[in-house]
Amino acid sequence: MGSVQRIASVINLDPEGIEEYEQLHAAVWPAVLAKISECNIQNYSIYRYGVLLFSYFEYVGEDMDGDMELMGQDPNTQDWWAVCKPLQRPVSEILEDEWWHTLPEVFHHD
Amino acid sequence: MGSVQRIASVINLDPEGIEEYEQLHAAVWPAVLAKISECNIQNYSIYRYGVLLFSYFEYVGEDMDGDMELMGQDPNTQDWWAVCKPLQRPVSEILEDEWWHTLPEVFHHD
Repeated sequence: MGSVQRIASVINLDPEGIEEYEQLHAAVWPAVLAKISECNIQNYSIYRYGVLLFSYFEYVGEDMDGDMELMGQDPNTQDWWAVCKPLQRPVSEILEDEWWHTLPEVFHHD
Repeated sequence: MGSVQRIASVINLDPEGIEEYEQLHAAVWPAVLAKISECNIQNYSIYRYGVLLFSYFEYVGEDMDGDMELMGQDPNTQDWWAVCKPLQRPVSEILEDEWWHTLPEVFHHD
């Protein structure tokens, strides 16, 4: 096993889209899940606090930028994002290349 | 290995307390970390979004309520909480027995 990179990030939902978003995520398309695994992402969870979504995953590969690019080129993932993104509202703090906004880690204990 | 229970929760910080909270959590007392491990909590991270803290951990024991009670009875942990709690501001949605507010999981992929 190489190193694990923990990535946490936030995005808002359209308040009108909460129900649809949760229904979609209760049954994510298998091809999308397969691509997530293929791109070295593990232990991926999303939680909701009001309209705020919090995402946590572990990247276990050697080239996260490269893997993220591969994921973005996958037609199934693109179709999935086309369904999900209209329900999302990026937070005002996003950087130029962000959709979800990455958070700083304050504490970790294995 | 038994089952893993993933627990995510939120709490606010006093805006004036962010720096102190982060300094404390950059060097959590070893006795507190040892008790966390002893109470079957693993892979514990805290992230910050503005004044909102997001916590994620995995409970790997067989009796989470019992282990949480053990943790609450530990004198070192009590001292630690006495330092940290004045910096925290529980969110308005907390239930009667909460300090941190537990969030529903919207999605998970191993």
